[in-house]
Amino acid sequence: MCQNEDESVRKERLEKQGDKNVISEKMRPYLANNSAIRMMFEEGKKMAELYGADKVYDFSLGNPNVPAPQKVNQAIKEILDEEDPLFVHGYMSNAGYPQVRAAIAENLNQRFGTNFTERNLIMTVGAGSGLNVALKTVLDPGDEVLTVAPYFLEYRAYVTNYDGVLVTVEPDEETFQISAEAFAAKISAKTKAVIINNPNNPTGVVYSEDTIRALAAVLEEKQSEYGHAIYLISDEPYRELVFDGAAIPFVTKYYKNTMVVYSYSKSLSLPGERIGYLLIPDELEESEMTIDAATIANRISGCVNAPSLIQLAVGRCVDCQADLAFYDKNRRALYEGLTDMGFTCVRPQGAFYLWMKVPVKQTEAGTVKSPVEAETEFVQAAKKYHILIVPGSSFACPGYVRIAYCVSYETIMNALPEFKKLAEEFSL
Amino acid sequence: MCQNEDESVRKERLEKQGDKNVISEKMRPYLANNSAIRMMFEEGKKMAELYGADKVYDFSLGNPNVPAPQKVNQAIKEILDEEDPLFVHGYMSNAGYPQVRAAIAENLNQRFGTNFTERNLIMTVGAGSGLNVALKTVLDPGDEVLTVAPYFLEYRAYVTNYDGVLVTVEPDEETFQISAEAFAAKISAKTKAVIINNPNNPTGVVYSEDTIRALAAVLEEKQSEYGHAIYLISDEPYRELVFDGAAIPFVTKYYKNTMVVYSYSKSLSLPGERIGYLLIPDELEESEMTIDAATIANRISGCVNAPSLIQLAVGRCVDCQADLAFYDKNRRALYEGLTDMGFTCVRPQGAFYLWMKVPVKQTEAGTVKSPVEAETEFVQAAKKYHILIVPGSSFACPGYVRIAYCVSYETIMNALPEFKKLAEEFSL
Repeated sequence: MCQNEDESVRKERLEKQGDKNVISEKMRPYLANNSAIRMMFEEGKKMAELYGADKVYDFSLGNPNVPAPQKVNQAIKEILDEEDPLFVHGYMSNAGYPQVRAAIAENLNQRFGTNFTERNLIMTVGAGSGLNVALKTVLDPGDEVLTVAPYFLEYRAYVTNYDGVLVTVEPDEETFQISAEAFAAKISAKTKAVIINNPNNPTGVVYSEDTIRALAAVLEEKQSEYGHAIYLISDEPYRELVFDGAAIPFVTKYYKNTMVVYSYSKSLSLPGERIGYLLIPDELEESEMTIDAATIANRISGCVNAPSLIQLAVGRCVDCQADLAFYDKNRRALYEGLTDMGFTCVRPQGAFYLWMKVPVKQTEAGTVKSPVEAETEFVQAAKKYHILIVPGSSFACPGYVRIAYCVSYETIMNALPEFKKLAEEFSL
Repeated sequence: MCQNEDESVRKERLEKQGDKNVISEKMRPYLANNSAIRMMFEEGKKMAELYGADKVYDFSLGNPNVPAPQKVNQAIKEILDEEDPLFVHGYMSNAGYPQVRAAIAENLNQRFGTNFTERNLIMTVGAGSGLNVALKTVLDPGDEVLTVAPYFLEYRAYVTNYDGVLVTVEPDEETFQISAEAFAAKISAKTKAVIINNPNNPTGVVYSEDTIRALAAVLEEKQSEYGHAIYLISDEPYRELVFDGAAIPFVTKYYKNTMVVYSYSKSLSLPGERIGYLLIPDELEESEMTIDAATIANRISGCVNAPSLIQLAVGRCVDCQADLAFYDKNRRALYEGLTDMGFTCVRPQGAFYLWMKVPVKQTEAGTVKSPVEAETEFVQAAKKYHILIVPGSSFACPGYVRIAYCVSYETIMNALPEFKKLAEEFSL
C-alpha cells in the first residue's frame, strides 16, 4: 500500500467535501451567520482607527462605559492580602463559596422580602452560563422554550445547545410589555420553559407587576392543563439598572417554578469577569433535586465552578450600587434629543438600551419598504455619520434599531448633531 | 373550571411520575451517580471535623497544596493599579486578549520550537471548558471518541454533552503507556477524536516520544483508511509537572490534527480561577474554520470568554515555574515509603498522582476477589486509618487506587505509619 497515494486521494476527497466533514453539523450554521453585534464591534474598531475614536459613535455593544466601583478592586486587593492563596485560587464547592452565596441570599432577602439561603444559589460563569446550566438541567430534545421578540439572539443558541426549540412570541409593539395572551397562544404540551429578560435588552422596557402577574396566571393554567412544570427563567443582568423609580417585581414571589439568572456584568461593570448566579427557590417543584442537578450541570459543562477570586470579591460587594446617575444622564439626553428630532423611541425604563423605530424614506412615493429593507437602509445611512447601531433583526424584530447608551456622555453629545443629519436625510 | 381541583389532580400526577418529569433525561444518571471524587472530598471534610485536620490523610483530590507563585498575586495587583478598569474587567475578543494569547504563543515557541501566533489560541474557562469547546466544535451525534483507561471520568460526561460515545481502550498494565495497537483495534469509521492526558491523571505516567510517534502513525493510517480527520485532543494540565528530567513531546509536532487543551490550575495552582486555553495549530485541517468555530463554541456555551483579570495575570506569568521541588519531595517520600512496605506502585514521572495496585487479602485461601471487591475492601480499610484515596473504578480501572500527593509533606510523613498498618492488615 502506498501511503502517499492514499494521502493524495484523501486530500482530494476532503476538498470535494468542503467544510462538511470538519465542523460538527450543529456548529456549521453559526459559522455562516456569525453574531452581527460582534461584527459591528470589529467594524467600530476599524472605523475608530480610520477616523479617530472620538469621531466614531459606537452604540453597538452592551459593554459598560462606567468603571467597576472602586470597592471591587479594593476588595480584590484585600482578599489577596488577607486570605490564604490556596483558599482564594483553589477549588471550592461546585456551587460556589458558601459564604459568598449566603451573602448574596441575605442581600436579596433584605431587598425583596424573600427567604433564600446559600443552598438556593449556584454561582455561574456569568448569566450566559447560568442560562445554559438552567436549560441543560431541564430540557429534553424537542422541548420548546418560549421567548418574546425582540430578544437577545444568543437565547436561540443556548436552547439549541440542548436540542430544544426556541419559539418566538410576537411583541406588543405598542408597549413592548409581554402580552400574556400572546404567550398563552404559543404554549403547547411541549413547552418546558419560558425565558424573559427584565429589564429588557434591547427595548429598555421594565415589565410591570401586572405583566408578571398575568404571565404567571397563564403559566399556572397551562401547567395544570398539560400536567407538567413550565419553568419561568428570568434573565436579570440589568435588574439593578432601573430609572424613574421603576420597581422590578422579584419573579419567584409571583410564580413558584421560577429560576432567576443574574450577572454582575452590568451592575458592577464586570462583563469580562464572567461572574453571576443561578437562583433556584425552594418553592420550585422538586427544588432539592433540581439544585443538585444544576450544580452537576455547572460542573460537567466544563466550567466546574465560577471563577474564585472575583467570586469572593462580589461576595464582599453585594451592597455596591451601579452608577445609575451616569446611565440616567445618558438616557435622558439621548431619548430627549432623538424624540425632539422626530424619531420614534420607546422610553427606556431600565437597562442601557434605547429602542427606536426605523423611519422610512419617503422619497419614492408609493413604494413600501419591508421592515428589513428599511432597517438596513437606516443602519447603512447611520454609518455615513459614523454612527454604529444594531438592526432589530439581530433581535428577531426588524424595523427597529437598538442604541446602547452605555457609552460616555461626550459620545452622546457629539453624536446628536450627526443623528440630526440622519433625521434630515430621512425627512423627519 | 375549578382551579383548585385541577391543581390537586396535577400534584397527584406529578407525585406518581416521581422525578421523571423534572430533570432532563440526560442529566438523570448523573444525579444517581454523583462524582465519587467529590463525595470523598465531602467525607474528608467531615472526618477532619471529627478527628482534627492533622489526623486525616486526605489524598483524594487534585487540589494543589502549593500556593500560587507570588508573582501571580503581584501581577493581579499591578494590573489593577496600572490598567483601565474598563479594560481589566470588560469584554475582549471572545478568544481572549490578543496580547495574552501572543505572550503564551511566544513562550510555547521558545520552549518547543513551534510557530504559534495569538490566532492559534483560544483562552478558555479552564481545561474542562477547553475540552468541551473542542468536542462541541467537531462532534456529531454518534461520533466515537477514544480514550485509554484509566482516565478522568469527566471525559465521559464531556463527550456525552455532544451526544458522542466514549470508547475505552484497555490499558497496558505493565507500563501504563499507550498501546498504539490497542487504539488501532478500537478505531472505527465513527471515530472522530482521541483524548489523551499527558502527564496522566491518575497514573502519573508521562507518555514517551515513542508512544506519541506510534499513536500518530496509527491515527494517520486510520485517517487514510476512513477518509476523514481523526482529532488527537491532548489534555495537558500537568504539562509543567514532570520529574526525573522527563520530557513531554509537544504533540502538534508529531500529528497535524492535534488540539492541545491546557489549564493553569496545576502549574500555577489556580484551579478555582478556571483559566486555560485551547490550542489549534495551523497544521490542522481547515484550521482557520476550526478556530472560528471553536471561538463561537466558546461564546455560545455561555462562557463567552475566559475570565478577564486572571487572564491578564497569567499573560504576565508565562515564565512562572510550578514548585516542582515541593511535589518531587512528596513524590519520592511517598513512592519510596510505599514500595518499601511492599505496595506495588507505578513510579510517577509527572502530575501529582501515585497509582497503586490494590493488594488482595490472603486470609481466605482459595477465594479470588474481583478487582472491584478488592479495591472497595482496600479503600474502606484505609479509612480506618483516616487515609482517603480514590478507587480505580473512578477512573474506569478497578483494582487500583489513586493517591494524590499534592498535599503537604507533613501529611505524607504522618500518613506513612498509617499506611504501614494498612500494609500489615493486608499481610504485605
